[in-house]
Amino acid sequence: MINKIDHLGIAVKSLDETVKYYEEALGLKCEHREEVPSQKVRTAFFNVGGTHVELLEPMSPDSPIAKFLEKNPNGGVHHVAFGTSDITAQLAQAKNAGVRLLNETPVPGAHGKQVAFLHPKSTFGVLTELCTE
Amino acid sequence: MINKIDHLGIAVKSLDETVKYYEEALGLKCEHREEVPSQKVRTAFFNVGGTHVELLEPMSPDSPIAKFLEKNPNGGVHHVAFGTSDITAQLAQAKNAGVRLLNETPVPGAHGKQVAFLHPKSTFGVLTELCTE
Repeated sequence: MINKIDHLGIAVKSLDETVKYYEEALGLKCEHREEVPSQKVRTAFFNVGGTHVELLEPMSPDSPIAKFLEKNPNGGVHHVAFGTSDITAQLAQAKNAGVRLLNETPVPGAHGKQVAFLHPKSTFGVLTELCTE
Repeated sequence: MINKIDHLGIAVKSLDETVKYYEEALGLKCEHREEVPSQKVRTAFFNVGGTHVELLEPMSPDSPIAKFLEKNPNGGVHHVAFGTSDITAQLAQAKNAGVRLLNETPVPGAHGKQVAFLHPKSTFGVLTELCTE
């Protein structure tokens, strides 16, 4: 069962400039920064009432976020992550409904969570992540 | 102060097909459908742990959602709405930080809320809505 929107992954060209915007213009507070070399991104997290805004800056030109920024040079929402109490059952439900999976089984994600992505062509243009709570 | 992500506005070509996906593949329940002729959209709402997924289907080719779909034919995240306890102060803070406003003062939105949009060129590619709680 999906219980919440866990986070929004937002692609940005410059983490520093965008963190400044979220802090100064929106009044949100960056609670954590982390480099994730396996995904070639630098990240910054804001907790907004239990849902996180996760800013993603590419660390190299072959990062998936760099490719997204080629198409969306100003940045934009890269993915939406739904938190679920049973990711295996959730993936099976999606597959049974005809959704193409990018991960057939969950893989380790940030914060020690298990995550799996659904293909955006199956999800009406929104790259969708399922993750454990 | 921003207290939550109120909703994600997601542009879709077909409300019926996309509602079916959210219900069957993700197991979410559509709680409300509404036509908003002033914005030339048909909408469907899902409550996901207090944040709403708001699907938006254009009712005419000159709807802003139709224009978004021309650029993103599969659909995608159109805007992110932050719920605030004081929208006037929040708008002033954004303006003082140099953000360009699409609405200088709040306007009536869905569900009797007051809403105002920030310009995506000021918000690093994410069309951002502020709304009352």
